[in-house]
Amino acid sequence: MSLPEVFIGLDVGGANVKTVKLRVRGGSIKVEDIARVYNPLWISGKESLERVLKELKNSFLQTSKSYVISTCMTAELSDVFEDKQAGVYHVVNTVEKVFQDALHKFYVSTDAMLIDAKTAIQNYLSVAAANWAASAWLLEKIAGERGFRNIVFVDIGSTTTTIIPVVNGKTIVRGRTDPEKLVFGELVYTGALRTNVCAIVDRVPYKGLWARVSSERFALSGDVHLALGFIKSEDYTTETADNRGKSLGEAVARLSRVPCADSKMLTMQEVVEIARYIYEAQVFKVFEALIQIRSWLASIGADLDSFVIMVAGVGKHLALEASRRAGFKQFVDVDDVIGEKISPVLPAYAAALMALDRVAASEVHSS
Amino acid sequence: MSLPEVFIGLDVGGANVKTVKLRVRGGSIKVEDIARVYNPLWISGKESLERVLKELKNSFLQTSKSYVISTCMTAELSDVFEDKQAGVYHVVNTVEKVFQDALHKFYVSTDAMLIDAKTAIQNYLSVAAANWAASAWLLEKIAGERGFRNIVFVDIGSTTTTIIPVVNGKTIVRGRTDPEKLVFGELVYTGALRTNVCAIVDRVPYKGLWARVSSERFALSGDVHLALGFIKSEDYTTETADNRGKSLGEAVARLSRVPCADSKMLTMQEVVEIARYIYEAQVFKVFEALIQIRSWLASIGADLDSFVIMVAGVGKHLALEASRRAGFKQFVDVDDVIGEKISPVLPAYAAALMALDRVAASEVHSS
Repeated sequence: MSLPEVFIGLDVGGANVKTVKLRVRGGSIKVEDIARVYNPLWISGKESLERVLKELKNSFLQTSKSYVISTCMTAELSDVFEDKQAGVYHVVNTVEKVFQDALHKFYVSTDAMLIDAKTAIQNYLSVAAANWAASAWLLEKIAGERGFRNIVFVDIGSTTTTIIPVVNGKTIVRGRTDPEKLVFGELVYTGALRTNVCAIVDRVPYKGLWARVSSERFALSGDVHLALGFIKSEDYTTETADNRGKSLGEAVARLSRVPCADSKMLTMQEVVEIARYIYEAQVFKVFEALIQIRSWLASIGADLDSFVIMVAGVGKHLALEASRRAGFKQFVDVDDVIGEKISPVLPAYAAALMALDRVAASEVHSS
Repeated sequence: MSLPEVFIGLDVGGANVKTVKLRVRGGSIKVEDIARVYNPLWISGKESLERVLKELKNSFLQTSKSYVISTCMTAELSDVFEDKQAGVYHVVNTVEKVFQDALHKFYVSTDAMLIDAKTAIQNYLSVAAANWAASAWLLEKIAGERGFRNIVFVDIGSTTTTIIPVVNGKTIVRGRTDPEKLVFGELVYTGALRTNVCAIVDRVPYKGLWARVSSERFALSGDVHLALGFIKSEDYTTETADNRGKSLGEAVARLSRVPCADSKMLTMQEVVEIARYIYEAQVFKVFEALIQIRSWLASIGADLDSFVIMVAGVGKHLALEASRRAGFKQFVDVDDVIGEKISPVLPAYAAALMALDRVAASEVHSS
């Protein structure tokens, strides 16, 4: 039996479903398609996942009958599920149902292995929030192939920040589950688009004084990064807090509501100063996680000056700024290393490559 | 009567007494001498001020019999005094006694006027903590003479940070007293040498976790700035927390005690990461004050892009970093503008110039 040509990587999050389609032909691997569907499960309901996956399948696989699918997830954290066990069960069963005709269906575990549906459901914590493990697997591959020995990977997405240290070519993390990662600074629940401003600051500068902030979902980090020119309207791929548009004026109007004002009470310049304050507080949060990890790396005798920061995600600018402040001196963009604009969907890409690696290895073994 | 040749500016702080001697000859003004005496009143006692001033007088005025003295102060805040009134009374009386032979004895008021001893004691709040007003007077002079219309002056000394905005050539502050300045962000009680680390952070990274800090006076901001290479041992002009020396090793030993460890429990690299965290927290404190002032300037319609940051003091590097983060884009060093390395004693220098200005004006008037 020849190697299948198509490998689908799937990253099922609570807010986004990300998919990468790889085509393998004559020894070359091509990223043939990328999709990111914004599908907040707590709004659209858990049943919506089946529809989203079917649509992705229709657009990705209409001409490919022989394919392998490899899934990682974080969606099990969504409060649409009773608990993580129920979340893993739902995601795995939905994937199994929609992609029942796949040659292989794999699930990425937190120890960067590929397991089957039955094992995933039995050991549900081993696949819960394991998308970082797909990235970690890819990092080791990059470290080996491109000669990076020591890396700190900083992936700032719309919602969260994932930090993975690679020492002597091996990823070494202290946290396996999300709460453990939050403890050790490997996960910071702050992102470049979807984070509620009131989860970043509890006061903002208001006409030269300090105003406490509203705890409504009035403005999000995307508004901050847009107002400061770090992202463009087209990078703001998630929903806005008021369901209005993504122009500068609309972002500024949302931010003006944070201290319970509006766009008539505050000038553009006054709101930009509010945004600067929120941005600095967010940089500090990422910096704190990085300095915690540096503190750990120093304690195990690592040479901190030898580390390369590898940034990924829509919040790359934030990752770079926080890394510089933490004392890192070498920086690369994972997209430049891989040669594809892949970083917004990196775990999905990595999951697909893991499957290719696995299937290719077993083909070699069986031949 | 001809213009006196010698003008002494005196800045009497609780921890430092700073003096500048100007010599005026043939229309040129020369800084002939500068002194900074570390004299913590709460340790050496309020009576020590007379001795310090006498020593300064002996070294500054041995060949100058005809001189004018101009005094500003912050020492009245020291808890060696019952209250500010008692502090002003003591400082003014001591200056009057030591410099009784001066041609004129002036005191700088918070509205940047020069008043006599009797008025100063009667209106003691008008001279309390007025050294910023001397700097403000100088800033207006610089703005007028050098064509800077809009300035934000950031003076980070050993102990405190003073911020003064100049708009259209006029200093505009909202706070007159220290507590008002603390409210409006014009005073931040944080400095580059003497600030207790536990007044900056309440936890530090420790071997990849977070340790609460001791509330002893184990390490000071000077240790942080030295460990990170921002200052050299010779810039560390104040006393250390343990009265030991100012080498890198000694600073690191002091910092290691902040999380109740010692220099055997932590490597140099681990302590440097602790220092980075403290430094970032301190930058944030100065940034907060600057963004509050920007917020105010924006609210009164000022064009923030037109402002030049003018830095002064041993913490210039901190001032520059915080200003950049606050969005300022133009920076000058007050020493470069004046053409003298005067910024560590700027209020004393300004007080002397104020006296020269005043005496010259009255000479012109009477001639």
